[in-house]
Amino acid sequence: MVEPDFDKRGGLVTAIAQDADNGEILMVAYMNREAWRHTIATRRGKYWSTSRNELWVKGDTSGHVQHVREIFVDCDADVVLLKVEQTGAACHEGYRNCFFRRLDGETWRVIADRVTP
Amino acid sequence: MVEPDFDKRGGLVTAIAQDADNGEILMVAYMNREAWRHTIATRRGKYWSTSRNELWVKGDTSGHVQHVREIFVDCDADVVLLKVEQTGAACHEGYRNCFFRRLDGETWRVIADRVTP
Repeated sequence: MVEPDFDKRGGLVTAIAQDADNGEILMVAYMNREAWRHTIATRRGKYWSTSRNELWVKGDTSGHVQHVREIFVDCDADVVLLKVEQTGAACHEGYRNCFFRRLDGETWRVIADRVTP
Repeated sequence: MVEPDFDKRGGLVTAIAQDADNGEILMVAYMNREAWRHTIATRRGKYWSTSRNELWVKGDTSGHVQHVREIFVDCDADVVLLKVEQTGAACHEGYRNCFFRRLDGETWRVIADRVTP
């Protein structure tokens, strides 16, 4: 099994989840080797939480599951790109994606509505 | 000036450059506060190299400049998304984007051609 380079950044790689249909960047998280292997085996996005120091499967508590359609790795092998089918909100704040604030002059402007409460 | 949260991950935020026209994810790099401020001021992508420990402006040596059209921040404020107009190759290996290898069974398969030698 080929793998990204977990040694470069202390055991973790950055993982970007992108909507497989429309190219929208949904969220950015981290994977350790266990999360990576689980994701490959199940085609469900599993990540390592750097704030809680634990593994989590996207959607296990929220129901907003993530089916992984394709996986890419970058030239440096320390970032992986998952093209996914995302149910509901990818962002834990209820937005479809985590990038709902755009720089507008001197402020961040919220440019999306929540898709879940 | 609003800023992402540079304190969360030791002074750096992750920066994703996405093609503003077609949604293609071009590259992932890092920014410190100086790179961020320079990018905002000039609308040219500037980054912090974690391998060389120095600032670099995308395209300064290669000519493959990156004009930043829009900037977004994620819910945790430690990832920024730049929607850019990219000249030539975003990847230092000559590919249009850095994600030119796709997981195909047990191997990485190169799925793009170089756009520059």
